Amino acid sequence: MSTGRFIAFEGGEGAGKSTQARLLVDALRQRVIEAVLTREPGGTGGAEAIRKLLLANEGEGWNWRAEALLFAAARSDHVERLIRPALASGRWVICDRFVDSSRAYQGGAGGLSDQDICKLHQIGSNGLLPDLTVLVTVAPEIAEQRLTVRDAGVSDRIGARPRDYHVSVAAAFVRIAQEEPDRFAVVDGNGTAEATHALIMQAIERLL
Amino acid sequence: MSTGRFIAFEGGEGAGKSTQARLLVDALRQRVIEAVLTREPGGTGGAEAIRKLLLANEGEGWNWRAEALLFAAARSDHVERLIRPALASGRWVICDRFVDSSRAYQGGAGGLSDQDICKLHQIGSNGLLPDLTVLVTVAPEIAEQRLTVRDAGVSDRIGARPRDYHVSVAAAFVRIAQEEPDRFAVVDGNGTAEATHALIMQAIERLL
Repeated sequence: MSTGRFIAFEGGEGAGKSTQARLLVDALRQRVIEAVLTREPGGTGGAEAIRKLLLANEGEGWNWRAEALLFAAARSDHVERLIRPALASGRWVICDRFVDSSRAYQGGAGGLSDQDICKLHQIGSNGLLPDLTVLVTVAPEIAEQRLTVRDAGVSDRIGARPRDYHVSVAAAFVRIAQEEPDRFAVVDGNGTAEATHALIMQAIERLL
Repeated sequence: MSTGRFIAFEGGEGAGKSTQARLLVDALRQRVIEAVLTREPGGTGGAEAIRKLLLANEGEGWNWRAEALLFAAARSDHVERLIRPALASGRWVICDRFVDSSRAYQGGAGGLSDQDICKLHQIGSNGLLPDLTVLVTVAPEIAEQRLTVRDAGVSDRIGARPRDYHVSVAAAFVRIAQEEPDRFAVVDGNGTAEATHALIMQAIERLL
């Protein structure tokens, strides 16, 4: 029995990551590949409890450092209890966001260095990286349209940050993808869900 | 206006840290020194929410890495929102446990290296250290007697770990104190609360 593949979806809010992750899992199952759909922060009981602390619009919020530590803690639980066991048993893991979100949101656009984010990931999860990270890019005006439809004006603590912040996040994702071209597939998410899915199936062809 | 002093109390369960921290705050207030009594994990709204996740005997618990990240996140919030502002305004901060507890419980007796624990503290709290750390040592049988009276057999997730673990924690505290003799005062906590308090007042004399 071989080890499963680990594929993460990354991008800003409204890029269509969650939809694409679901479509990929469906496509894999049609090929009789066992696949687990999961997300970050979250995916396990402990990590979902941390997710609530991170995204609730209550209290005073978190400083950048505490926020990065909480994401790394949630990821550590998720990697140990769900991702590694699933991969070891031969299943594929399709994850909506992973460490590159921390690098973009708390690193590039936030208050921490990329080096510190990577160090937290090393300590928390032994530095586990996806076999392939699909970065779904989308024009800001399209992302905003989608979010208006989806969230009806309600967003979580991180989604609610100002426009400039989200522009920096998008730029950070592109920079990270350029630095690690072998691990990333950058996919145009401006079209329909079906069109984007077709691009993603091309990108993962080599893993099948 | 001068900066306040930061004093942490460390030691195993049943050493008498909380009692001694309270007695010290009372003694400082009698000398008209403004002092804030606080504790870890906790001390702020965010950090107390993390405390609940850490100490609850529910669910599957946390792996060593996630546990260390959660302690560092709680400490980051506590340092930024309570400890640094209090010190900057000239108040003393008396804290029941601080980073040396992480070094002993998740480092020495746990699954992480001391280097990783210190790195998490550097990233989370810029490596802030107390002016003085009072390590209260106590014989295991005396600690057990006190815990039986105090907790009536109920302990939290970390307190409930096996005896060997707590022996390793005590040894780790002594080792850390020996490595940093200028920052530590090691105080015999086997006697009465009053006797131990007198020893502690001698130890902090140089800060007054």
